[in-house]
Amino acid sequence: MTGKETLILSIDAMGGDNAPRCIIEGVSMVAKDHPGELFFFLFGDEAKLTPIIAEVGLDPKCYKIHHTTDFVRADAKPAQILRSGRETSMWKAIMAVRNGYAKAVVSAGNTGALMAMSKICLGTLQGIDRPAIAGILPSASGPIVMLDLGANAKCDPQNLVEFSLMGEVLYHVLFNEEKPSIGLLNIGSEETKGREEIREAAAILHEMGDKINYYGFVEGNDISAGKTNVVVSDGFSGNIALKTIEGAAKFIAKALKQEVKGSWISMFGFLMAHSSLSKFKKKFDPRIYNGAMFLGLKGISVKSHGGTDAYGFSCAIEAAIKMARQDICEKTKNEIATVLNMSALDDTTAP
Amino acid sequence: MTGKETLILSIDAMGGDNAPRCIIEGVSMVAKDHPGELFFFLFGDEAKLTPIIAEVGLDPKCYKIHHTTDFVRADAKPAQILRSGRETSMWKAIMAVRNGYAKAVVSAGNTGALMAMSKICLGTLQGIDRPAIAGILPSASGPIVMLDLGANAKCDPQNLVEFSLMGEVLYHVLFNEEKPSIGLLNIGSEETKGREEIREAAAILHEMGDKINYYGFVEGNDISAGKTNVVVSDGFSGNIALKTIEGAAKFIAKALKQEVKGSWISMFGFLMAHSSLSKFKKKFDPRIYNGAMFLGLKGISVKSHGGTDAYGFSCAIEAAIKMARQDICEKTKNEIATVLNMSALDDTTAP
Repeated sequence: MTGKETLILSIDAMGGDNAPRCIIEGVSMVAKDHPGELFFFLFGDEAKLTPIIAEVGLDPKCYKIHHTTDFVRADAKPAQILRSGRETSMWKAIMAVRNGYAKAVVSAGNTGALMAMSKICLGTLQGIDRPAIAGILPSASGPIVMLDLGANAKCDPQNLVEFSLMGEVLYHVLFNEEKPSIGLLNIGSEETKGREEIREAAAILHEMGDKINYYGFVEGNDISAGKTNVVVSDGFSGNIALKTIEGAAKFIAKALKQEVKGSWISMFGFLMAHSSLSKFKKKFDPRIYNGAMFLGLKGISVKSHGGTDAYGFSCAIEAAIKMARQDICEKTKNEIATVLNMSALDDTTAP
Repeated sequence: MTGKETLILSIDAMGGDNAPRCIIEGVSMVAKDHPGELFFFLFGDEAKLTPIIAEVGLDPKCYKIHHTTDFVRADAKPAQILRSGRETSMWKAIMAVRNGYAKAVVSAGNTGALMAMSKICLGTLQGIDRPAIAGILPSASGPIVMLDLGANAKCDPQNLVEFSLMGEVLYHVLFNEEKPSIGLLNIGSEETKGREEIREAAAILHEMGDKINYYGFVEGNDISAGKTNVVVSDGFSGNIALKTIEGAAKFIAKALKQEVKGSWISMFGFLMAHSSLSKFKKKFDPRIYNGAMFLGLKGISVKSHGGTDAYGFSCAIEAAIKMARQDICEKTKNEIATVLNMSALDDTTAP
């Protein structure tokens, strides 16, 4: 016994650009890092999975293949996949969580389909109107949690308040901070600025007093500055901000490289600075921050970037493990119930 | 005669953190770069301006001081300043444009006040529902124009269409490109994605066919990639995107510096790469991109960043000069009239 209960994870082995190879390799990395603690249900085409599993040497004691005949295409529409996707590896992997066989599902497949299926299969938590997608971003004061990243293009004040509590619990679970600070993304720090729904959400969060650590409004530049642990916005602004950061980082790196390549002395200088630069690159490695977490559901569902490699996929699994070990769904339900003064009566488990 | 008519510019010499010194120094830089072509009305406290003007050696033939007794505070509320700000340097500088004495006004003062006063004094162009704030950003394919940057937190489809045409004309005027490409900022490139008002604006722009160079939806990462010459969004998303880029760039630069400082060899390497790095820094110098242009008004009003220095202020004046020399208001009015099929009858000039 390692002192920890075996955690069963459900893996969609057929989702993502590099599936199933990088999925299995990622599973293998995580399995080696947690010996004797994890068990994986691998959903996918057995004939394809078996040789890769043999190649990477995945311990037979830690996995079971569930053969599936179909998978969700990258360009599939969520509505269509809900109708005809019941034989896909993604659907079956989610169902394993719904039926209580696994604690969390991880997939690198189609985001819209994963969200739609997770919502239908797992259901939304009591007290939550709409689930949201959360991500982790690097900042000057360490990693931060940001949500919603695209599930809800428009939100009302209550949605934003619920996202705040969901983000608070996620940050707590991932980084062990008791009362993470929460900021609402806006276009000015004054109380009169921005959109009405954000000002109303701010008023509700203010009224909660000591129950939460609400900081106030934050602006676009405060995200990377890490002014708050959690940044909350509707899915439209959140998605724009996230992708804008990615684009800016890529552009700066490319422009720097071009400038340096123009001169031999500069290139030599950069070679000398190599160890610092690789430390820098490591810090910003997007794979570390891989894993978009679907919050507000009655089960854990994590979306890995479709184009990531084995290490990136392993990072998404690690996020799912933390969320599962700390029972994030239960914690979120309780936080919603406590802070929003609702009955915390559980509608799924026996007393 | 230089072949060019003398252009008269109106300057709010009391606005911004470093006024009036950096304002006068900026004016002096521009005057030297355009000998015999410009004349400045300087609005401000004569007792403060005179010694600085003497110090920088501004040619007496190219300016006239208009003494003012008041100025707009950085924290003044627009509504309050509209009531009681008629003696401020900002108001009087704008009035010089309204009354036809100057072709453009440049101020580094309070943005909200400058927008409110410019709207009231200058009026909105025929065919335009709401003015917008535009800015220039660096990108992988050269400078791009982005709007709205914060004047309108919410927009309807027609506003976004008008911003598209206003941005198109601005890009044309600044960079001499006949048919700049226009993108609508959204959270996906598929036609079914994002908010309704954006999809409706896209449908209208599509229908315009060859009259404009409409590209389609662009996402956050496409801004810095420079996928289109013009990026159009509501003022909320635009402001978030702009500040998010600023924040990300600052964070990356700081993190890189920190990592390099940790090692002597790296520092030495970076010294060797110095010339490339300073070229790189020059390319991203935020002062070059200084100047937020208020579009859709019956006159030219440019807002300089409040914290900029003399060189930054001179760049904002240069933008105003290009806009004035090319008669951007007339061009915008005509573009709106032509593309939106309205009567192009001028309501201000004789036939």
